[in-house]
Amino acid sequence: MHRDDICCRVDEADLRRFIGQSLARCGADTPTSDAVVRALVTASLMGVDSHGLRLLPHYIKELQGGRVCGAPQLRMEQRLPAVAVLDAGHGLGHLAGYRAVEKAVEMARQVGVGAVSVGNSSHFGAAGCYAMTAAEQGMLGLALCNSDPFVLLHGSRQAFHGTNPIAFAAPVDGEDPWLLDMATSAVPWNRVQQYSAIGRELPADIAATEDGITTTHAADVRALLPLGGAGFGFKGAGLAGMVEILCSTLANMMHGFHLLPMTGPDMSTPRGVGHFFLVMNPEAFIERDTFQQRIKAYRDDLRAMRGVDDRPVMAPGDREWQCREQRRRKGIPLDHAQRDAYRELSLQLDIPSLAEHA
Amino acid sequence: MHRDDICCRVDEADLRRFIGQSLARCGADTPTSDAVVRALVTASLMGVDSHGLRLLPHYIKELQGGRVCGAPQLRMEQRLPAVAVLDAGHGLGHLAGYRAVEKAVEMARQVGVGAVSVGNSSHFGAAGCYAMTAAEQGMLGLALCNSDPFVLLHGSRQAFHGTNPIAFAAPVDGEDPWLLDMATSAVPWNRVQQYSAIGRELPADIAATEDGITTTHAADVRALLPLGGAGFGFKGAGLAGMVEILCSTLANMMHGFHLLPMTGPDMSTPRGVGHFFLVMNPEAFIERDTFQQRIKAYRDDLRAMRGVDDRPVMAPGDREWQCREQRRRKGIPLDHAQRDAYRELSLQLDIPSLAEHA
Repeated sequence: MHRDDICCRVDEADLRRFIGQSLARCGADTPTSDAVVRALVTASLMGVDSHGLRLLPHYIKELQGGRVCGAPQLRMEQRLPAVAVLDAGHGLGHLAGYRAVEKAVEMARQVGVGAVSVGNSSHFGAAGCYAMTAAEQGMLGLALCNSDPFVLLHGSRQAFHGTNPIAFAAPVDGEDPWLLDMATSAVPWNRVQQYSAIGRELPADIAATEDGITTTHAADVRALLPLGGAGFGFKGAGLAGMVEILCSTLANMMHGFHLLPMTGPDMSTPRGVGHFFLVMNPEAFIERDTFQQRIKAYRDDLRAMRGVDDRPVMAPGDREWQCREQRRRKGIPLDHAQRDAYRELSLQLDIPSLAEHA
Repeated sequence: MHRDDICCRVDEADLRRFIGQSLARCGADTPTSDAVVRALVTASLMGVDSHGLRLLPHYIKELQGGRVCGAPQLRMEQRLPAVAVLDAGHGLGHLAGYRAVEKAVEMARQVGVGAVSVGNSSHFGAAGCYAMTAAEQGMLGLALCNSDPFVLLHGSRQAFHGTNPIAFAAPVDGEDPWLLDMATSAVPWNRVQQYSAIGRELPADIAATEDGITTTHAADVRALLPLGGAGFGFKGAGLAGMVEILCSTLANMMHGFHLLPMTGPDMSTPRGVGHFFLVMNPEAFIERDTFQQRIKAYRDDLRAMRGVDDRPVMAPGDREWQCREQRRRKGIPLDHAQRDAYRELSLQLDIPSLAEHA
């Protein structure tokens, strides 16, 4: 969040309390509420503001509208030693995500690799949360999710895939993991909104109008280009397709093109989002110490490269760990829109408001 | 290959004969020779000219120099039901690649997923060859490879990762597979060479000079930008990092930064390239017929989108299947440089030359 946009800060514990109470008030059971609190606070601490506390009002609307079930019946079926399938019972995707990754970790401990396909789910927040969870247990973790159509196909002016994120994490003993969490679109939607708010021109070749024409005017943007832009967008579109096949096809869910939009207006029909998780135990491939020496050497070499204008070169995740350290100390920032939304939730749900501070 | 660059064509069978004889003459055993023939001819038929017949003279130099072993001792160790590790014995990477993917398919049949890490290998041609091999057996296949440093880190003017490709294939009954094969760099090196040859300006923001400064002059290019360019290259660099961790770290190989350059001058020291293969059986997750209905519907929907200027929208792989059909009919094209190189090999190795036709 840009410094100028910060209107107040809140403490992590108080934010957990508020999110948990809000969800409970709308019928979420404890496992669901705990999972959402964990995912949103993790993302907010790491500075992934698009996927942090900002999403609570949306999830509340989904619970109130009946699109998602606050107390879902999750059904996990282990079909083979390395494969399980989870029916998320149209609950909040965070619960399904954490359950699935735990199951994948368990299988990876047994047979080296665990893959879990999740269907009948909903938005699960930041994909990185689930990849991180695997890395915190010494595992390599991959987390994917499909989403509603918002990104042009390569060579087309029509939106087809969602921003279909890819998150991958690798464990580093005694240090924060190596963590990549990226959308397969050229730019995050969040960035477009940010530029729109301050009237700043977008870079060329990353976003398009309703007619699929590339534009640099953020306010006119209705779709994103795939990663690689007009020239090389077959790469981003191809990666989005891989995510789509693993998340929707493999889970017998509708592909992005047919998926109901996340933001409405229908808040009563379940969307049927799919996720995919893969966990691998590095010790199944290589001695633990050797892997750890190698990955540390790799990340140290990367960080030691010469940055443009003498700025430090960051490994994937480094910016997020820095932000987390700072926000744990100073509090988690809210912008005006978020503060107003949380104040309104407090009134609407009759919950003690967040203790805002500077 | 651009029409103007085609100087002659050769038939598939004759090309197989020539490549096989050349490799045998330089000490390659039959399994090695068969694997290289299969990979190079597959790539050339599909129009992946950067990774097709063009590479034979390079492999011959590697065999003659002793950098790669023509009759390697491959050691496959299955360490857990879903994990195997292959020591490629410094042979040609194609043999290791096909062996590894076959092993991964075998494990995926048993436990749903199979992962194989390969070390002490060398260049394996196009990653797509191995993903395709899985798909031809009804499996989802992922193939990754590291390579020597040629791509700038995000926020740095120094090359760090290789073009570290990602290939993914999904099976479609009775049809060609869905196939993505992409480098994680902004542009293929091949494209830069092509533009350099004809003096055409490159798009901005994809390639850099020796000093790491972005340039559009193809002749000045010494490094590539990661996919996403100067603004969003953290995505391409992050994907390259995921590939690096799975290919070099997991296989106890040196990471890209320390890897000997593919093109020399040292042709006697083994490079220690790493690969990674993951195969999943879709039937372990979902009924076979349901998966097939879903993936066909997905690809049909994609192909039915409206293309820019009414050009058809292609799914990943479609261009390659079209090209293969055409080249099987008309022959595989060679440009002048390739024709000259093959004529020279014919003289040098005393092998009947290719039957060139128009």
